Amino acid sequence: MSTATAAIEGDGIESGRSQPQINVGVLGATGTVGQRFITLLSNHPWFVLHRLGASPRSAGKKYREAVNWKQANAIPSSVREMIVYECKPEHFSECAIVFSGLDADAAGDIETAFRAADLCVFSNAKNYRRDPNVPLIVPFVNPSHLSIIPQQQSLLSPPLSKGFIVTNANCSTTGIVIPLAALERAFGPLELVLVTTMQAISGAGYPGISSLDILDNVVPHISGEEEKIEWETLKILGGVSESDTGVKSFDMHARHPLRVSASCNRVPVIDGHTECLSVRFARRPPPSPQQVREALAAFTPDAKALGCPSAPRHTITVHEEPDRPQPRLDRSYQDGAGVNVGRVRQCPVLDIKFVVLSNNVSIGAATSSIINAELAVLKGVVPT
Amino acid sequence: MSTATAAIEGDGIESGRSQPQINVGVLGATGTVGQRFITLLSNHPWFVLHRLGASPRSAGKKYREAVNWKQANAIPSSVREMIVYECKPEHFSECAIVFSGLDADAAGDIETAFRAADLCVFSNAKNYRRDPNVPLIVPFVNPSHLSIIPQQQSLLSPPLSKGFIVTNANCSTTGIVIPLAALERAFGPLELVLVTTMQAISGAGYPGISSLDILDNVVPHISGEEEKIEWETLKILGGVSESDTGVKSFDMHARHPLRVSASCNRVPVIDGHTECLSVRFARRPPPSPQQVREALAAFTPDAKALGCPSAPRHTITVHEEPDRPQPRLDRSYQDGAGVNVGRVRQCPVLDIKFVVLSNNVSIGAATSSIINAELAVLKGVVPT
Amino acid sequence: MSTATAAIEGDGIESGRSQPQINVGVLGATGTVGQRFITLLSNHPWFVLHRLGASPRSAGKKYREAVNWKQANAIPSSVREMIVYECKPEHFSECAIVFSGLDADAAGDIETAFRAADLCVFSNAKNYRRDPNVPLIVPFVNPSHLSIIPQQQSLLSPPLSKGFIVTNANCSTTGIVIPLAALERAFGPLELVLVTTMQAISGAGYPGISSLDILDNVVPHISGEEEKIEWETLKILGGVSESDTGVKSFDMHARHPLRVSASCNRVPVIDGHTECLSVRFARRPPPSPQQVREALAAFTPDAKALGCPSAPRHTITVHEEPDRPQPRLDRSYQDGAGVNVGRVRQCPVLDIKFVVLSNNVSIGAATSSIINAELAVLKGVVPT
Amino acid sequence: MSTATAAIEGDGIESGRSQPQINVGVLGATGTVGQRFITLLSNHPWFVLHRLGASPRSAGKKYREAVNWKQANAIPSSVREMIVYECKPEHFSECAIVFSGLDADAAGDIETAFRAADLCVFSNAKNYRRDPNVPLIVPFVNPSHLSIIPQQQSLLSPPLSKGFIVTNANCSTTGIVIPLAALERAFGPLELVLVTTMQAISGAGYPGISSLDILDNVVPHISGEEEKIEWETLKILGGVSESDTGVKSFDMHARHPLRVSASCNRVPVIDGHTECLSVRFARRPPPSPQQVREALAAFTPDAKALGCPSAPRHTITVHEEPDRPQPRLDRSYQDGAGVNVGRVRQCPVLDIKFVVLSNNVSIGAATSSIINAELAVLKGVVPT
Repeated sequence: MSTATAAIEGDGIESGRSQPQINVGVLGATGTVGQRFITLLSNHPWFVLHRLGASPRSAGKKYREAVNWKQANAIPSSVREMIVYECKPEHFSECAIVFSGLDADAAGDIETAFRAADLCVFSNAKNYRRDPNVPLIVPFVNPSHLSIIPQQQSLLSPPLSKGFIVTNANCSTTGIVIPLAALERAFGPLELVLVTTMQAISGAGYPGISSLDILDNVVPHISGEEEKIEWETLKILGGVSESDTGVKSFDMHARHPLRVSASCNRVPVIDGHTECLSVRFARRPPPSPQQVREALAAFTPDAKALGCPSAPRHTITVHEEPDRPQPRLDRSYQDGAGVNVGRVRQCPVLDIKFVVLSNNVSIGAATSSIINAELAVLKGVVPT
Repeated sequence: MSTATAAIEGDGIESGRSQPQINVGVLGATGTVGQRFITLLSNHPWFVLHRLGASPRSAGKKYREAVNWKQANAIPSSVREMIVYECKPEHFSECAIVFSGLDADAAGDIETAFRAADLCVFSNAKNYRRDPNVPLIVPFVNPSHLSIIPQQQSLLSPPLSKGFIVTNANCSTTGIVIPLAALERAFGPLELVLVTTMQAISGAGYPGISSLDILDNVVPHISGEEEKIEWETLKILGGVSESDTGVKSFDMHARHPLRVSASCNRVPVIDGHTECLSVRFARRPPPSPQQVREALAAFTPDAKALGCPSAPRHTITVHEEPDRPQPRLDRSYQDGAGVNVGRVRQCPVLDIKFVVLSNNVSIGAATSSIINAELAVLKGVVPT
Repeated sequence: MSTATAAIEGDGIESGRSQPQINVGVLGATGTVGQRFITLLSNHPWFVLHRLGASPRSAGKKYREAVNWKQANAIPSSVREMIVYECKPEHFSECAIVFSGLDADAAGDIETAFRAADLCVFSNAKNYRRDPNVPLIVPFVNPSHLSIIPQQQSLLSPPLSKGFIVTNANCSTTGIVIPLAALERAFGPLELVLVTTMQAISGAGYPGISSLDILDNVVPHISGEEEKIEWETLKILGGVSESDTGVKSFDMHARHPLRVSASCNRVPVIDGHTECLSVRFARRPPPSPQQVREALAAFTPDAKALGCPSAPRHTITVHEEPDRPQPRLDRSYQDGAGVNVGRVRQCPVLDIKFVVLSNNVSIGAATSSIINAELAVLKGVVPT
Repeated sequence: MSTATAAIEGDGIESGRSQPQINVGVLGATGTVGQRFITLLSNHPWFVLHRLGASPRSAGKKYREAVNWKQANAIPSSVREMIVYECKPEHFSECAIVFSGLDADAAGDIETAFRAADLCVFSNAKNYRRDPNVPLIVPFVNPSHLSIIPQQQSLLSPPLSKGFIVTNANCSTTGIVIPLAALERAFGPLELVLVTTMQAISGAGYPGISSLDILDNVVPHISGEEEKIEWETLKILGGVSESDTGVKSFDMHARHPLRVSASCNRVPVIDGHTECLSVRFARRPPPSPQQVREALAAFTPDAKALGCPSAPRHTITVHEEPDRPQPRLDRSYQDGAGVNVGRVRQCPVLDIKFVVLSNNVSIGAATSSIINAELAVLKGVVPT
């Protein structure tokens, strides 16, 4: 399903060698996603947290003064006293990689400016996800989409030699495309996907959802979320096609049309999106529930991805207990970097139904960006 | 879709006449459903709460001493000092109607004994729902199924002249079959129904769900619930067919086969089941979202049901706001006797998707039994 | 403890006569407190909701378009289509009474302007509570403080003949001063009061508390709340003293100095403040727990207050069960207009300890203002 | 305040030496506290989990089959396949230490039998806490109370040479006695302590509190809890006195009588007890809030306790932010082994008030028992 050229591979970091030390920056460092980036990066074996960016209001302050820290673990001691800068490229010129946890309001212009300054931006924001030259990468699913980057660079004016933007997917999309990709790899294309989500409040940021709206309640609507799932899934699971003149484009799963229907709900859960899926395969007869369980459990990312230090040992954990996965019990497994699947069974309407749980603040957000950056380093896409 | 004979109709209570006064009893009076029956019956225009039944442990005590009352309103003053009896038919001989809020463990034998004593039992328990001679009635949907009662009575040994069992549906089934019936009435048979539920903790009774299992959590499994929805929907939406020899049977929607797929989840909501549905109609092209909205809002039960004092003024309330219905805001409307529908829109996989909210402790439980009994009185099925 | 002159009494409305019909307005009508005012006033036997005021952004819209309605019951049908006006006195000239549910940010200037226009303002805002000429009235506790109104009117420039401001207390203060007043009436002055509160999220308005801050959490701080309890309690439980020159002032309980210590916490409860109190009486030996229970249950407001249509039948409900009152079970009793007390027992440190539950959105807010206005009508303070 | 003899010290394990390897067992291994013991012990530097005990129903099963695991992290892989035994001493003869997470129903007889078999029992159960020869030890507070053990052993028939029972305190007591001990060490005896608790649901075990009782609610009562706090605090903060004939007894703080008043509440929080305290010192004038803050932050346990591998680096963390500590944000700091204090300020009624947060399933339960055992090893009380 993918036409990724191998050309850009092979010149990255070999696992086994000594660990690279790479300066990185975080944009939107005081926000919810930014706090998560900082937590994850403060102990990273390759990435050295070098620069923090936030709004002009925070600029010049120490991080501990600028942030309203909401994580269960304390601010990493190495970060507490770091100075916060404005999100301007000149402050980040020593960063080989810049992670963006900016809100969509601010992300567009700032990420554009950072790319124009030839910086490598890995963004959690939605602004560039639909750009035809920006890869929307979910770790373990479509690393081949990085092959669009040279085209992204060449089309800019002036063309860039190093800088680019890579985005990761919406949190609720990420959770489902990983098992869907595993199913397509094992059983061929899917035709229909129907998903109902029960999403955690942390997905809305801080302050996000008013407690009066969600305590003892379900809100059966999240603005724009259903459209994101229905569209992003096609871009991520689709391949990259190349025209006779060498122009690459994302094929949106066009060779095997796929229809996705999403119903999104907010529930009183702090972290962890639970999603109920039913799918129909093109292949007749479809695989059995047991075959699906085995294929999900056996799913392993490609060789390069295996070398990513933030990759989980088990990409997909398949639960056998009838009442799992559950967000409170399973969201922290492998520090939230894997995906949980359970209740794989036949669907009387489509073929197979199952439940997915993914940690929206980990694999659904900052962890994805970080693994994407690790992968880009391994593939030599980021100059090191 | 229904073949109910009109023969049993016509001799009931005419609306407009003076109100009947009918002695009723409640079995399982100290339980969660029993408390709800008592709350609703203490102010009923027709039904006079005459006898309370509970376990031998409670028998002989005053109700206020026997019960661990968990309702937001106080025990009705008329009931506080009533004596609780064992659930034996001889104590209920003066009751024209007996409501059963018994747990499934106890309901089977006790309801059998009450029917054998020629009592009219309206049960919220699941035990008799699959009995081929027991009607599974959801108010406003399939009152015609009451026509099986003479056959139920005649097949017993000895045959009965008055007593019978009528059940209402599982709470999560009730919420969806009301709008589904409205759709079938307006647009003809459905072919496919896919539903994902987010169910309130009160559906599990008391003590029910441990707080450690549901606070900050979703449990993606409710034992037996998916099978109930998938099976009960067919019985309720199907008709009653009659063989050449006059034997009646429930046709399980067989003339237009219907496939239902349910995924059931428990969420931290006190009252009110939220359910996300996608449906496919037999009719091509299918109705538009706007046609569906209008049909749902216009749905009115049959003439007799309109005379039921506990029937809501609006059977189905269609919400236009993008984020409604919500359990906390909408479950108490019309004292929980109606059903709320919102977010009616096209489904990229089936035809139409929408959200249903129903109050599981009202229309999903005791209110249904009471309306069923009111209807049976109006239709002359209960001797008065 | 009070020196209220009876002079202003006696010319009000006699209960038993036909009901007065009095036009009223609501300021801040789209906010949380405003919604509660509207719910309560839409069925009021005396007060006719005549004018709604809100921010310029809402002005000119129909109420149903301007409001983000968050109440469990629907917008009263009589109010849905009412036009919202700016909070300017000229729009409210036909209102004999104006209720203010404004936020503190806006309340100061607007309430001043309304009073200057000779309107009678009953405010839920904090701005005027510490004004030495504004009575801070808790229903059933200190109606005699209305006697300061002529002085309030005379000191303005120009002096007023009709208009004034009356405030009600902070929600967490209201819940405790009612039982404390009952204790002082029965057993004489209190010396020490130590209270720890567990306050509902609705007390912070909408959007108020972020769900990320309160789900699975307690926040042991509410800005300014402890100071309000410690200060307002003295003003309310104290009397009105009069100097030789006829100047009245609130004595802040000075004749029997009272020390109050409050620790305020926010908990994940929607409505209903639970407060744990320990008190010490001046009288030695102190009353027994049983005497305290009896005095609380026997507490009745003064004769005039008894005629208020919104007054509860039982001002204080004393619970005997060891685990009551609880917010979810007891906050709706009497529509939230009474106060619940339970667990009255000896305190090893002070004299007596007990638990108070009051509904912060009812008696703790709009209900108090409405009863205050009813009382002012009965006492002839509001011209009718 | 303590008269612990140093005699039993000095022959334990020196820190710096190689780590001892000591076989330990867990009683009640499948329960809530047992699960926590197993989580903590599976990585312990000294203690080797050698034997698991549970009810006869579980005996013979593999642990993963016997347990309904409710922890956020998975069952330790080393424990999954361990066989569960009945709680009989003969199965634990190779264990130098036995931790008891048994329910009070079972703990009495079983712990008695284990001690009689000359085993060293560290119990989280309440049964022996009031025994005049059993030390009730809170880590860092009263290790000197271990000096009663020889008397406990000698009074049994037959006298024991090795076996004994040591208990830890009730979870809500533990949280407060650590800061109270710090205050007494710095400023001399306390006279009055008034505490209101807001306790997590996990304190009630599993299934424990019904979700219907605690969602959107506060329960202002926990059976027996207030008595435990009021009594245990005296035993723990008191010393050990010795009669002329050499009989030791706990003095219950008798030399400086201390009165403690507790009001206990259950709140919808998963883990972490929040407690609001007001205290009065004997010393006049009392210390200032700043002095109290400094004394709390400076508190360090005695030298031996410092060598306990499970001891936190900061026994008491003093928060400066006005709205901390909060259970969700602070309960996991130092794996829950420390205590958090915040909002230290003057109390208008007593001297000083402040907020304590402690993790009831860590320092409030299993962590305490484990540190107590570590301390007993270091002091040579447990033969190694």
